[in-house]
Amino acid sequence: MSCRFARNIGGGWIEAKNSRGEVGLVPEDYIEVNQAQPFTSRGNAAPLDLSFFDSQMPAPASTAQTSNGNDPWAVFDNNPSGGFSNNWAAQPEGTETGKTSSNAWHSGGHGHPQAYQGPDIYPYPCLIDLSGAEDDEWDEEWDDVKSSGGYAESEAGEGGAINRGGAHGSSMKIALNKFPGFSKSGPELYLLSKQAAKGTKLPIYGGEVGPVWAYPDYQLDCVVADPKKGSKMYGLKSYIEYQVTPTTTNKPVNHRYKHFDWLYERLLDKYGSAIPIPCLPDKQVTGRFEEEFIKMRMERLQGWMTRMCRHPVISSSEVFQLFLSYKDEKDWKTGKRKAEKDETVGVMIFSTIEPEGLPDLDVIEVEQKCEQFSRFTRAMDDGVKDLLTIGNEHWKRCTGPLPKEYQRIGKAFQNLSSVFISSGYEGEATLTDALTAAGKTYEEIAQMVAEQPKKDLHFLMETNNEYKGLLGCFPDTIGVHKAAIEKVKEADKLVAAGKITTSDKVSMSKRASTMSYALQAEMNHFHNNRIYDYNRVMQQYLEQQVKFYEMIAEKLRHAHSQFTTM
Amino acid sequence: MSCRFARNIGGGWIEAKNSRGEVGLVPEDYIEVNQAQPFTSRGNAAPLDLSFFDSQMPAPASTAQTSNGNDPWAVFDNNPSGGFSNNWAAQPEGTETGKTSSNAWHSGGHGHPQAYQGPDIYPYPCLIDLSGAEDDEWDEEWDDVKSSGGYAESEAGEGGAINRGGAHGSSMKIALNKFPGFSKSGPELYLLSKQAAKGTKLPIYGGEVGPVWAYPDYQLDCVVADPKKGSKMYGLKSYIEYQVTPTTTNKPVNHRYKHFDWLYERLLDKYGSAIPIPCLPDKQVTGRFEEEFIKMRMERLQGWMTRMCRHPVISSSEVFQLFLSYKDEKDWKTGKRKAEKDETVGVMIFSTIEPEGLPDLDVIEVEQKCEQFSRFTRAMDDGVKDLLTIGNEHWKRCTGPLPKEYQRIGKAFQNLSSVFISSGYEGEATLTDALTAAGKTYEEIAQMVAEQPKKDLHFLMETNNEYKGLLGCFPDTIGVHKAAIEKVKEADKLVAAGKITTSDKVSMSKRASTMSYALQAEMNHFHNNRIYDYNRVMQQYLEQQVKFYEMIAEKLRHAHSQFTTM
Repeated sequence: MSCRFARNIGGGWIEAKNSRGEVGLVPEDYIEVNQAQPFTSRGNAAPLDLSFFDSQMPAPASTAQTSNGNDPWAVFDNNPSGGFSNNWAAQPEGTETGKTSSNAWHSGGHGHPQAYQGPDIYPYPCLIDLSGAEDDEWDEEWDDVKSSGGYAESEAGEGGAINRGGAHGSSMKIALNKFPGFSKSGPELYLLSKQAAKGTKLPIYGGEVGPVWAYPDYQLDCVVADPKKGSKMYGLKSYIEYQVTPTTTNKPVNHRYKHFDWLYERLLDKYGSAIPIPCLPDKQVTGRFEEEFIKMRMERLQGWMTRMCRHPVISSSEVFQLFLSYKDEKDWKTGKRKAEKDETVGVMIFSTIEPEGLPDLDVIEVEQKCEQFSRFTRAMDDGVKDLLTIGNEHWKRCTGPLPKEYQRIGKAFQNLSSVFISSGYEGEATLTDALTAAGKTYEEIAQMVAEQPKKDLHFLMETNNEYKGLLGCFPDTIGVHKAAIEKVKEADKLVAAGKITTSDKVSMSKRASTMSYALQAEMNHFHNNRIYDYNRVMQQYLEQQVKFYEMIAEKLRHAHSQFTTM
Repeated sequence: MSCRFARNIGGGWIEAKNSRGEVGLVPEDYIEVNQAQPFTSRGNAAPLDLSFFDSQMPAPASTAQTSNGNDPWAVFDNNPSGGFSNNWAAQPEGTETGKTSSNAWHSGGHGHPQAYQGPDIYPYPCLIDLSGAEDDEWDEEWDDVKSSGGYAESEAGEGGAINRGGAHGSSMKIALNKFPGFSKSGPELYLLSKQAAKGTKLPIYGGEVGPVWAYPDYQLDCVVADPKKGSKMYGLKSYIEYQVTPTTTNKPVNHRYKHFDWLYERLLDKYGSAIPIPCLPDKQVTGRFEEEFIKMRMERLQGWMTRMCRHPVISSSEVFQLFLSYKDEKDWKTGKRKAEKDETVGVMIFSTIEPEGLPDLDVIEVEQKCEQFSRFTRAMDDGVKDLLTIGNEHWKRCTGPLPKEYQRIGKAFQNLSSVFISSGYEGEATLTDALTAAGKTYEEIAQMVAEQPKKDLHFLMETNNEYKGLLGCFPDTIGVHKAAIEKVKEADKLVAAGKITTSDKVSMSKRASTMSYALQAEMNHFHNNRIYDYNRVMQQYLEQQVKFYEMIAEKLRHAHSQFTTM
């Protein structure tokens, strides 16, 4: 079920070639690139012969087009029959080269391989993703178009949409490169790599809680604020620019959404195999400049940036530092080009990881850890989604029928009071004044009830939504590890078959151990952040809930005091 | 549309005769007796010729039966065509002898003349009225069956159901007497009466708020308590007996529901034209001995008794005093027989009313007052029903979806906590203990929410339900007054036609003035009680609401405190 290259020919079709050299067209929607890395294009990869990892692949539906068949790295999964998802889900994980299905947990019957893409259940400002149609966001270039050579979407329109089609907070999507020859995936690239590691070393230490990343002494943070409408082409095109101020320099830099997106793509390329990089908040076409939307996007960009700042590996990376503190436009352009040429991307990131004073783990241990994290993230994903569903229903009730009911109660009291006033009976005011006030109080409570979710449930939802997005990236990340484990477990056979040397086998095992430490460090980072985040959001939620109920009680106490004891 | 007599022949048919002597069968549901009084049967009424008040009546649907046509007093309204309600409503009020339509305000399209009989919207223990089927309640006689001669229903089974078919809190129904010759209605009986008033005088004084009844120095009250299951016929039949203890004697007496009903019938007969006598809480067949039902009925009987105690005319009446403080069974039986033979019933109650030092009112003033009270009670009726509808919906929400939602929120928190516990991450307990506690708190809140309506909304609903019942009696009471006003307005014509003397006319006007003072005194009594009741119930409601919200806030404050600030 893998193909050996693919090329977007437009109109929703992808030209693909399988390992037997058969070429044909498959619908774009049926294809998902896994760990596609712009690697060989930069000419630095050792020309490994990985053909022994290939499985059989059925012929694509048609072979109307010839194709560039020179690239053996691009690995696709496809199923032109439309039964894709279920077939995929039914396959044992990790049995194919580089297969890291983002759909492994939640393949439904909808025939689309992207998990975590259900409709946006959160009733807050609906962010509709119509990236394919959002031309102006993508056609305009703040700086040199040509410089974004590795930034496929800005050049290839609708073809890029396949990777971005998720609801906000959906799974990490690794870029589909439309140009055959750019893609390379599979952990074997790292497991069997002969080249020396390039780039900054990423040490892992044995901490109190287990393997941990090296945390900086100073916790980086930044503020995303002050969204401003900018325009270009004599006002024909407009956009929103956000001011991003890092706590290090305290010097603000301006960034448009597409720059955040560029950063996301770079981080995903470079760290995605080891660190789940959550998606950015969705783009939106309609009402893009409406205040509410801009505020919401800013809030979510802030959340995304804060999470990135808190990550010791991300926050100290060159590309992230560039984004936060470039000096001028020239500095930004230069840094951008450099980042796009970074070679240590995809699974090669593991080559920079150095467990310090930690013993090598055998594959059984590696697998156990991996399974444990897989189980946990899956269970948490379910729990978070459950909470989001319930929170969403609660949101609807709190902003819909409940305040309406309090309002009706308030109106009924006031109406009865009006009737009473009409009695002409002396001393009526001793009741009616109080009854009218009570009615108004319930109308105020209605208002409070309707506005409350924005004060408490909103943050609970946002945090869980963020976690839903983050957890949606784990299948991809964990998939890389599972694939590596499978390779290591096959090592004996490969040695026996003379495909790899015994030294290769030892090396693979050691590298799988390194990968495991990276995963453990990442999980410990995740747990640490999670405990902080949930403590914080629950405190915030409950604090606001307490205030809410106290305020209602206070209002009712006042209403009560106006009735006379007779 | 009036007929001159009617006889229940069973099977849901009434044999009726109109003023032209035509006899036929009409469906029981189409007939409602207005101010039918067991008067002439006791042989004490002056044989007034009131035939000049008769209107034309169409022939009943069939004339298959001959009938006792000797009684000119029984006045029925019927409409065999089925369009009864609307026709009735379309007729100008008071144009026919003694017509006091209880359906005048709210005639719907259901073809049933009884207003205020919609389904019991209050979701609290549903009291289904199946009086026709409730044989054991009515067949069993605690004392002499024969003594209840004036108590038609105990002898005539399903025929009596027509008057008792209302939902609890429905309109006052004046007894349908199955025996032709027993009925007499219409205010002319009083307006043209030549006989001296019999029975205790009921003075009306000019108070601060206008005409008022004579209030006793000591406010009577009673406690309905201690429901006990009794049985008779060697245990074959069982019933519930309530202990009623008046504050005057502090000596408890026992009464079954049917005794309350007997009292109701007596009060209705005697005072119904001047004082709205609210219906008793409904009877119920199924689950009659279930704890919940008995408690509810007791509570409502208590409410009914309290309201009767608070009425200066009712509470000081002989029959009411008998009910509350009979000495022994013999005393009860004797008193019962005496009450049933009371002659000052129906409109004749006005003959005992004596406005003290109050000037005679002219008919314009009388009519204005009457109209004012009619408008007020109608508007209040609408307001009360509106509040009941809203309260009912609120009740449903508070006991249904809302606590379910809080429970789900609680479960979601606890579920997430369980997932977190499974992480194996050190220091997890700093979050999970608090998160589990928060989840449990929301489950507790769910419980509180579901139980709250019984603590506050219940009393608001009960009070409004009681007022709905009371207000449902006003059309009947006000109808008597309206009919009297019409008669007085016709007086000149009648004098000119030689039907009545000038002296009769003066007398009629004076008596209409007396009736107006009675209505005003009653309205002032109503207003006074209403202001007290609504002040009290609103205080109670708000007090409980405050407690409720404070308790939620307190619980959440405690849940909040368990999260650690990091």
